[in-house]
Amino acid sequence: MPNTYKAGWKPDPRLPLPIYRQIEQYVQGRIRSGEWSIGMKLPPQRALAEAFGVNRSTVVTAMEVLMAEGWIEGRGRGGTRVIGIPDERVRRTMNLPDWNAYVEEGAHYPNLPMIQRINRLEFDRDIIRLGTGELSPELLPQEQIRELFASLAKRPVSLGYEQPQGDEELRRLLSRELSRQGIQASPSAILIVSGALQALQLISAGLLERQSAILLEKPSYLYSIHAFQSAGMKLVGLPVDEGGLRLSELERCWRTYRASMLYTIPTFHNPTGTVMSESRRQQLLTLCETIGLPVLEDGAYQELWLDREPPAPLKSRDEHGIVLHVGTMSKAVSPGLRIGWVVGPEPVIERLADIKMQTDYGSSSLSQQAAKMWFASGMHLPHLEHIGKRLRERRDAMLALLDAHWSDIADWSRPEGGFYVWVSLRSPIPVQRLFNQALKHGILLNPGVLYDRSAVRQLRLSYAYASLAELEHALKLLPQLIRSR
Amino acid sequence: MPNTYKAGWKPDPRLPLPIYRQIEQYVQGRIRSGEWSIGMKLPPQRALAEAFGVNRSTVVTAMEVLMAEGWIEGRGRGGTRVIGIPDERVRRTMNLPDWNAYVEEGAHYPNLPMIQRINRLEFDRDIIRLGTGELSPELLPQEQIRELFASLAKRPVSLGYEQPQGDEELRRLLSRELSRQGIQASPSAILIVSGALQALQLISAGLLERQSAILLEKPSYLYSIHAFQSAGMKLVGLPVDEGGLRLSELERCWRTYRASMLYTIPTFHNPTGTVMSESRRQQLLTLCETIGLPVLEDGAYQELWLDREPPAPLKSRDEHGIVLHVGTMSKAVSPGLRIGWVVGPEPVIERLADIKMQTDYGSSSLSQQAAKMWFASGMHLPHLEHIGKRLRERRDAMLALLDAHWSDIADWSRPEGGFYVWVSLRSPIPVQRLFNQALKHGILLNPGVLYDRSAVRQLRLSYAYASLAELEHALKLLPQLIRSR
Repeated sequence: MPNTYKAGWKPDPRLPLPIYRQIEQYVQGRIRSGEWSIGMKLPPQRALAEAFGVNRSTVVTAMEVLMAEGWIEGRGRGGTRVIGIPDERVRRTMNLPDWNAYVEEGAHYPNLPMIQRINRLEFDRDIIRLGTGELSPELLPQEQIRELFASLAKRPVSLGYEQPQGDEELRRLLSRELSRQGIQASPSAILIVSGALQALQLISAGLLERQSAILLEKPSYLYSIHAFQSAGMKLVGLPVDEGGLRLSELERCWRTYRASMLYTIPTFHNPTGTVMSESRRQQLLTLCETIGLPVLEDGAYQELWLDREPPAPLKSRDEHGIVLHVGTMSKAVSPGLRIGWVVGPEPVIERLADIKMQTDYGSSSLSQQAAKMWFASGMHLPHLEHIGKRLRERRDAMLALLDAHWSDIADWSRPEGGFYVWVSLRSPIPVQRLFNQALKHGILLNPGVLYDRSAVRQLRLSYAYASLAELEHALKLLPQLIRSR
Repeated sequence: MPNTYKAGWKPDPRLPLPIYRQIEQYVQGRIRSGEWSIGMKLPPQRALAEAFGVNRSTVVTAMEVLMAEGWIEGRGRGGTRVIGIPDERVRRTMNLPDWNAYVEEGAHYPNLPMIQRINRLEFDRDIIRLGTGELSPELLPQEQIRELFASLAKRPVSLGYEQPQGDEELRRLLSRELSRQGIQASPSAILIVSGALQALQLISAGLLERQSAILLEKPSYLYSIHAFQSAGMKLVGLPVDEGGLRLSELERCWRTYRASMLYTIPTFHNPTGTVMSESRRQQLLTLCETIGLPVLEDGAYQELWLDREPPAPLKSRDEHGIVLHVGTMSKAVSPGLRIGWVVGPEPVIERLADIKMQTDYGSSSLSQQAAKMWFASGMHLPHLEHIGKRLRERRDAMLALLDAHWSDIADWSRPEGGFYVWVSLRSPIPVQRLFNQALKHGILLNPGVLYDRSAVRQLRLSYAYASLAELEHALKLLPQLIRSR
């Protein structure tokens, strides 16, 4: 259960029933309905007190009564758990399913506990999100999208299912957008997906056998999710230098692990910010063409350059169709649209489209229409220019703050695009403690271990989300926490 | 490759280059770029001729040249396949990945070939969709949704990611909607998903082990998709009578197969239209509580009643949280929104929300906002009443046409809700041939075998999509095709 709890219910002090009795009845109701199932761990008393807006002692009283009556039981450090309805008749004839066993036995890996907490805490309004992979709402094109809605309201809307590969006009517009990046992709070689993450899921389900090995940069965003591991695949991390992935290792690991695919973020790597050099890109492709290794290129940050345009994507140099290229609207335009795309050989795109039909019958037609209007409107390039300018200010502010307050304890690189500064502390930190301490001060961190288990001295800082004032506050405070541990 | 092909390109008769040379160059370009990968099967020449708007003989000429030059090769009935770029240098040093092997080795099952064809053919504007699981566009609330867009344009839009369980206000509104159906669900016990199909995917990935057995009605919609089978699970079909699932079989099969879950569509079953009786529902729950078998209730058609309100959902009678209830906006409001929900015990909902975050980072915030406005607007009930009336007319028209033209060759039931009439022909039909023959006459059928491999005499007819004129045309023509075979 989460450490914060949203009950959607509060005791009412105007009722004749004492508050603790109201809480008792609320808990009994949740247990009776089965929403709090047998074996479920209750939220911490502190979280319940906060959710109900009462003193913790009131919760404690209610819990003691419930425990005495046999609804719940305390298990020391194991927390409090639901036993069920304390009615002998019911218990004798029934053999209710044990949902906890189901939750634990499902084949898909759960997110790392820290990722689960981050996913929830990001919706806490008062928190400073210092590592988040998302643009600040003030940088999203709110006004422009509202204009699009106004014009959507004036024409016939499409409320039906979309084609398996996605709206045809949207794919035509994307084909045009991609050609700006040097990628020649026919609309028939493009699949619309619900964000880049779904593309990874479809590729893992549709193209790879269980037990396959995937090569990737280490650290990598891919380590923080379980798209491939849950499908029974192994991730093999490769070392990286300032020019990107080291190719000598690539060939060796391909041979050792009989790898099926290479996943790479060549431009503004997540989390390190590294840009793969021109020459490395060319060599990488030549090597992969020689050894027959398909490349999955994650281009999520390609357009978010700050100082100079980065080298063109791998896909733009791919003369023989060995690269699958993934892109998204989430980083520059709107995460909430959930619109991304995959570019690749037609048989691959058709296979992925078929699995997508089995997964969710296609992406939201509303989102696809909004995306279509966005790319047709000509708003995209000016918007990129606008956020590029703002992100540059933010990056420079973050670097200045790091210079001023972190130079004795850490090193970092200067990103030329994307969202992140990858900070290496000079001595190792107890990650979980720093995470919790920062949280007590209202700061949400993305520790390096999420992207590489051995990156115990690293933090992924993002200049894209928090305000400048928040950045200043957090980047002044954190070194104190780090030093004082 | 599909039988119809969309090239997005046509030869230009004004160019000095002969048409067949232009086609040659087009194909060479696709092969050079890798979009047509090595080993890929080319679309049939007929489909290419149609896509390019030329005579088939022109395509044949181009293909002969390409074959002579070594770009493609004919393999008789195996069709024509891509060999690659006929350049010795390239072939000698390269060892390009074999995408066909990837497409074939991915763990997820492809859709049945007939389903794949149906998924594509449904976007052919001239076709009569006689079995489709979707409301006719004229019955969707186009005007009302446009009004919603207009008001969306007037307020701040949310373009960021949504909470793991989905927008909180939407869950509150759904909690209210569900209580109309007798289901008491707290917002914290609801997960927003991208359509009901995604709910099934999440449940299969999150709650069930590989090799689990799932009990279900036979026939069932679930046989036509591979949500559970692709995750390594076994479907065990149970016989059905006019009151729904037969419980004697349920207990026996649960024991024999050590089943992990029961999937059921108790109300307006897809494809048979059956409604599980009040008494059967109660007995079913008692049995499942006794043997500890969780129930997955698919409530997609619950609100689409025509004559009288059906018995309340299983979930509304579920006193101990053994039922997971799935609902959707796709059947009554808008398939394109891709909004559905799961109701269940909180630990289950949290587990599913976590996997959803790993799958697509939540559903489109645009769609969630539209859904929120829809349920807040009070438009839902009047809309249900409106489409109920129209669907009743359509059903009655279909039944009258069946009476007039099918009574000597088939039997069928009279559905009291949902979209479908389940027709049983008195003698078996060669399904594939009838499907193709109907297609030649512009009629798209959903044969019974999609929902039960042994249902070789059945058809799922839908009165929800085709116009009354189309229904009349198709239901007069089909018996002729069936008799003449």
